Amino acid sequence: MNNNARTPVGLLGATGYVGAELFRLLGSHPRVAVAWATAESGAGQVRDGLRLVKAGDASFGAVEIVLSALPHGVSGRWVKQARAAGRRAVDLSADYRLDPTAVYGLTEFARPQVAAADLVANPGCYPTAALLALIPLARAGLIDHDREVVIDAASGVTGAGRNPRPDLLFGEVSENYRAYAAGNTHRHLAELKASLAREADFIGDVVFTPHLLPVKRGILETIHVPLTRRLERPDAEAIYGAAYQAEPCVTIHPGGLPSLQDVVFRNRVALGVVPVEQVQRPRLTVIACIDNLVKGAAGQAIQNLNVMLGLPETMGLTC
Amino acid sequence: MNNNARTPVGLLGATGYVGAELFRLLGSHPRVAVAWATAESGAGQVRDGLRLVKAGDASFGAVEIVLSALPHGVSGRWVKQARAAGRRAVDLSADYRLDPTAVYGLTEFARPQVAAADLVANPGCYPTAALLALIPLARAGLIDHDREVVIDAASGVTGAGRNPRPDLLFGEVSENYRAYAAGNTHRHLAELKASLAREADFIGDVVFTPHLLPVKRGILETIHVPLTRRLERPDAEAIYGAAYQAEPCVTIHPGGLPSLQDVVFRNRVALGVVPVEQVQRPRLTVIACIDNLVKGAAGQAIQNLNVMLGLPETMGLTC
Amino acid sequence: MNNNARTPVGLLGATGYVGAELFRLLGSHPRVAVAWATAESGAGQVRDGLRLVKAGDASFGAVEIVLSALPHGVSGRWVKQARAAGRRAVDLSADYRLDPTAVYGLTEFARPQVAAADLVANPGCYPTAALLALIPLARAGLIDHDREVVIDAASGVTGAGRNPRPDLLFGEVSENYRAYAAGNTHRHLAELKASLAREADFIGDVVFTPHLLPVKRGILETIHVPLTRRLERPDAEAIYGAAYQAEPCVTIHPGGLPSLQDVVFRNRVALGVVPVEQVQRPRLTVIACIDNLVKGAAGQAIQNLNVMLGLPETMGLTC
Amino acid sequence: MNNNARTPVGLLGATGYVGAELFRLLGSHPRVAVAWATAESGAGQVRDGLRLVKAGDASFGAVEIVLSALPHGVSGRWVKQARAAGRRAVDLSADYRLDPTAVYGLTEFARPQVAAADLVANPGCYPTAALLALIPLARAGLIDHDREVVIDAASGVTGAGRNPRPDLLFGEVSENYRAYAAGNTHRHLAELKASLAREADFIGDVVFTPHLLPVKRGILETIHVPLTRRLERPDAEAIYGAAYQAEPCVTIHPGGLPSLQDVVFRNRVALGVVPVEQVQRPRLTVIACIDNLVKGAAGQAIQNLNVMLGLPETMGLTC
Repeated sequence: MNNNARTPVGLLGATGYVGAELFRLLGSHPRVAVAWATAESGAGQVRDGLRLVKAGDASFGAVEIVLSALPHGVSGRWVKQARAAGRRAVDLSADYRLDPTAVYGLTEFARPQVAAADLVANPGCYPTAALLALIPLARAGLIDHDREVVIDAASGVTGAGRNPRPDLLFGEVSENYRAYAAGNTHRHLAELKASLAREADFIGDVVFTPHLLPVKRGILETIHVPLTRRLERPDAEAIYGAAYQAEPCVTIHPGGLPSLQDVVFRNRVALGVVPVEQVQRPRLTVIACIDNLVKGAAGQAIQNLNVMLGLPETMGLTC
Repeated sequence: MNNNARTPVGLLGATGYVGAELFRLLGSHPRVAVAWATAESGAGQVRDGLRLVKAGDASFGAVEIVLSALPHGVSGRWVKQARAAGRRAVDLSADYRLDPTAVYGLTEFARPQVAAADLVANPGCYPTAALLALIPLARAGLIDHDREVVIDAASGVTGAGRNPRPDLLFGEVSENYRAYAAGNTHRHLAELKASLAREADFIGDVVFTPHLLPVKRGILETIHVPLTRRLERPDAEAIYGAAYQAEPCVTIHPGGLPSLQDVVFRNRVALGVVPVEQVQRPRLTVIACIDNLVKGAAGQAIQNLNVMLGLPETMGLTC
Repeated sequence: MNNNARTPVGLLGATGYVGAELFRLLGSHPRVAVAWATAESGAGQVRDGLRLVKAGDASFGAVEIVLSALPHGVSGRWVKQARAAGRRAVDLSADYRLDPTAVYGLTEFARPQVAAADLVANPGCYPTAALLALIPLARAGLIDHDREVVIDAASGVTGAGRNPRPDLLFGEVSENYRAYAAGNTHRHLAELKASLAREADFIGDVVFTPHLLPVKRGILETIHVPLTRRLERPDAEAIYGAAYQAEPCVTIHPGGLPSLQDVVFRNRVALGVVPVEQVQRPRLTVIACIDNLVKGAAGQAIQNLNVMLGLPETMGLTC
Repeated sequence: MNNNARTPVGLLGATGYVGAELFRLLGSHPRVAVAWATAESGAGQVRDGLRLVKAGDASFGAVEIVLSALPHGVSGRWVKQARAAGRRAVDLSADYRLDPTAVYGLTEFARPQVAAADLVANPGCYPTAALLALIPLARAGLIDHDREVVIDAASGVTGAGRNPRPDLLFGEVSENYRAYAAGNTHRHLAELKASLAREADFIGDVVFTPHLLPVKRGILETIHVPLTRRLERPDAEAIYGAAYQAEPCVTIHPGGLPSLQDVVFRNRVALGVVPVEQVQRPRLTVIACIDNLVKGAAGQAIQNLNVMLGLPETMGLTC
């Protein structure tokens, strides 16, 4: 077998922010070839030499793996067709994330399952950052179940997609900042809680509040963790260090805190920790940053694709 | 006495972001005249027809009230001189905020004291928003002391002043977002806790984490309040409605949440509330927004000045 | 007659960026009362205590003057109805700007005509800045007709209106910059040339290229003027000084150049000039800045309204 | 010889915006190894596993080629030392750009000279875009020498470097836009004119006005060209197509105009053309975009480095 052969893949939904990022990353991947990419209103346009086709005209038979960046609700139906045609699939939408027939593709915690999977549900952007921050603490039994974990998450606008909604106009977003889906009404909360239960047997309460930042890409989550015992900063850093020492896509900022510019355009989760002073019971503040389009979507999909194909996990990615 | 006479005031520190905002607001105030305004490196420059002088050349005898927007540490010394010269003063720095000889000028809760004060310590920007959000709940005994109040606050860059720090360059702030002074190490926490204890006998734990937003002005605080009993949204709104119904500078967003664009360039605190679902014990999320330069600094100083002079409280202000 | 009586006015189209700015300015005007304001999809909403009505439900009889911030093409028809009902009108759209039955309301050059006008066509944003920069030079015969005047204009996004166009999303505008309507295809060119001919008998060629800036408001025009004779900087400044010495809304920056932050939220044109070195024939570069929503639209409409009503010209405006 | 051997290079000045970009690009280059990188105040810091040293501690003997991203004025002295030590050098500062002993490294027009050069002066960001736009027209004799070429250029803030100047603070740059060095006083004009004369025998007048954009990276130049004869759009595009058909780093936008987002993070010049209507004599408007840090600095330096080493010209670059 030729070690340099390229695996043909198909991309459903190439024109949204996530789809375009995926198309860009796949285009520079040394061992993958995009056989086709789809768009509906943009069908017929040419991107980097490839003419976009409608999803209905895509040939599942011509590819080995199908990646879908279609919208929630739509994606699941097409992925089902790809599976019916015998293709493996990575679904970047939310449609299979709570479905037990799919592997939940948080790569760092699901390598063997992803490697063998026919269908990978790529995690949501907010849960990706929160899970990589919380699982090590939860597994160590350090989170106090009697008090709530509070997560304030702030995301750039590409997380909201490319639809021309009035509230996403430059004139509304620039010089502005706002919370949305407050009161635990965001879809990602269920995904987060299901994963915490499955990965770490954690069933405590979580309060999750997303916010819209006037930036194009990047998520920063400020995660307030009630602890079962006091942790000094080096202790907390050591827990993450032990959990992620072999991980190429997770970085710990010893003695410092990461910001968006540490992660944008990278397939990286950056973590920083600070014990909380001036409170009676022990608490830890964890800052977790990712690029919502990369480790929060397209990059992690490539990471999973590499695992599925037995390739080096970070091939085609900058971590 | 002529009802339209202008009271002469002096402004210490007219060239920082707060001082410039104060100078602008005083300039359009119908019953106040700026007799002098100071700058050190900018002395000699002319602003709106007034030549800036060094603080050492300012004549306290020529004014009735001195306002200081000098930096923390420097301001207190000059305010002390103004007081020694028999002048009333409003200090916008942090120097007198924890000092019992000054009146803490959170106008809505200190009108009689401000009216009679010789020295008003103008509140900090972060505490102003947090206090107006928390005092009504604390006074009603609704905050559960056994769990911490968690405040994530995000501020525009003018809150950090006009000093040319590398981390405040456009190239570092734009498309970025970061936490700072995490772990309860920000100066404003002590100011906040002292005021909660004084105004509402509240002595529970608070976790306060500020963040730097890529916007010029505005603060949004996401305040997570553990409750002693379940509150529906209308109930929570009614509590604020009762507390602030006569207040010209506080607005409640029934059924909605405020954002920065509701408050910038206004002397307004905008509040919105959401009960938290999917948690076992009752919680309320409160969003509080202010313009850090107006209600968080220069505007509230004018509001206090008006009270000190017996003028209508919002004269010269847009609420 | 009561000197403090308020003149009732009606506002057609209160929810676009220009209409909202006009509503805000009218709301704080001491001698005008907004009797009604219209919106189509937003009808029924309440703004500052006034319930918005559909244009078809507006009562022309209840007002003295109608201001229209409706879109081009739509506005003209409603203004025609207002005129048929005997009302004076200010049309902020382009519909009457080339129509000889309307007065072109570039206030500084049309006061007597505006004072007597039944119908004022409020100038476009780009022409306002360009005309105030070029008319004094053209009247002095200083512009060389043999070489083209080149204008590169950059505008904030509110100039493009509030329609949810994909190219106006934050994700497309932020960190981006682009020219549009290049090659002299922008509608404002005809308006500019007609006014230069009428006001200054100037009929030379003009090249006008607009650009979209990642800012909310403000226009900066870099105007390249071929001269008939060499002008030193003080000479050029003196020409503008003489033309505008009594003008409250035009400022000259001697020895410096204005930027957007000199004009935003103000009804002001700021001008700066620089002679061009290292060229064989004399040239002058003129920088002209305005706030597209204020002097470029709503503010100039108020300025014209004041003139029509015999009020002080800058009443209700910050220049 | 081992085809995969890495050439050792040294980097003078690794912590400014250009130096950091160069360090990042060199780090992912498959055939180059950074032996050392220098910083003065940042000496001792570790970047991607390499400890930064002071320039005085750098070993010229350990490398084959020295790249300098030091500031103008400083860079030339260090490059001279590198040359004295027998090393080839690429100077990204302006110090050698007008010096006949160096090769002016506008790669597309200087490949043989760069390949043989001991010292390459990397072009300035503004001239790079302007030259690639103007040389094909000038060589074809299409530019009318009797009228001036007018260039309005707008750059992101990284073009101004990382020094904490007050006018580069986020609070001053955001929501702002301004011209600077107007009147043909910018250093890059001489570089541009010297290159136009050398490459295309063009000696006509040029008016160059740079502006500061509220974006981090990217340059857009609007270039107004007086023509000797009328060109339709396809004709103009064909001229560029012929000039650049084999060029990997130059793209023409047929029928459209490029914007910053077409070029950021790429080593690409994007060009678009529009004939000007409504003028008496023929004119063409050319839009040229580059990323000031990539094709305008670090990327073009890598491009030149590849040519000097006989490697594929775009190795390690995204065009």
